[in-house]
Amino acid sequence: MTVPVLLLRPATRADLPAVLALLADEERVVDPATIRVGAEYERAFAAIEADPRNELLVLVNEGHEGGEGNEDGDGGTVLGCLQATYIPGLGKGGAERALIEAVRIRADRRGGGLGRTLLEQAVARARARGCALVQLTSDKRREDAHRFYERLGFVRSHDGFKLALQSPFTTDEP
Amino acid sequence: MTVPVLLLRPATRADLPAVLALLADEERVVDPATIRVGAEYERAFAAIEADPRNELLVLVNEGHEGGEGNEDGDGGTVLGCLQATYIPGLGKGGAERALIEAVRIRADRRGGGLGRTLLEQAVARARARGCALVQLTSDKRREDAHRFYERLGFVRSHDGFKLALQSPFTTDEP
Repeated sequence: MTVPVLLLRPATRADLPAVLALLADEERVVDPATIRVGAEYERAFAAIEADPRNELLVLVNEGHEGGEGNEDGDGGTVLGCLQATYIPGLGKGGAERALIEAVRIRADRRGGGLGRTLLEQAVARARARGCALVQLTSDKRREDAHRFYERLGFVRSHDGFKLALQSPFTTDEP
Repeated sequence: MTVPVLLLRPATRADLPAVLALLADEERVVDPATIRVGAEYERAFAAIEADPRNELLVLVNEGHEGGEGNEDGDGGTVLGCLQATYIPGLGKGGAERALIEAVRIRADRRGGGLGRTLLEQAVARARARGCALVQLTSDKRREDAHRFYERLGFVRSHDGFKLALQSPFTTDEP
């Protein structure tokens, strides 16, 4: 008997091709089977997984009752992802703040409320941990995303600034 | 012989009152001697200090030649601070990004280039670590700060969203 269950859980190594597929192209579905997981992504995933203040979270459709079923990569179909970083600090009465990055919903599954589920569950996770604040930035061109975050209760109070650096790691790439 | 030396270094426990004084009031100088360091700030500082991906950095005027001179809290006068968080991730070829928060220059020392020194040294630190990007957000009302970051090369490409949570920690406060 098949009962669809939406679950937000930390990604395992077996989910990495599916997550990289989500990140590779926001506009169309990329088949995870076509993704080559380079050593730099293996390292980055291992760093996230080993860090108690970072979580790569995946929204999965388990598609069956009971059991985690994560052997052989069968942890359900990855429909969305985000990364949460929990930051200790001296503001907010010494409480952590949660930074959310890399929010994605699979291109063919948008418009059905999955984004809301993804964000609401991530916020609930931050709240349960004792975070005083959740923050994120969104490209100024993404007006649709901005309305989405505002409907979820986020306040667009800040401007986001980025400075690209020449990383020594990027010179290793073809 | 007194030679002023500006140094950006990780804060020690002895700097904590001075940093909390900077954070307490952005508009006037607060005497660190008036700051009570509560247990919640002791905990938060210890968490930052123990985390290899977080640094609370202070810009200090050492005011003397040679030596760190940090015994008895004599680590120089704290003129500015910021917190850097180094975030592993699957974008940017697997390189870390640096998030900068809590940027402050002491109210009576602004306008003399200390902010530029603080940010430039923090960016150099992120670059030396291999970060591909430095990012920060700034309140939309702070147009002066925005021009400052743009002069340093930052691009105002994003909007910043915040969602305040009811933290269990804040209920402990008077």
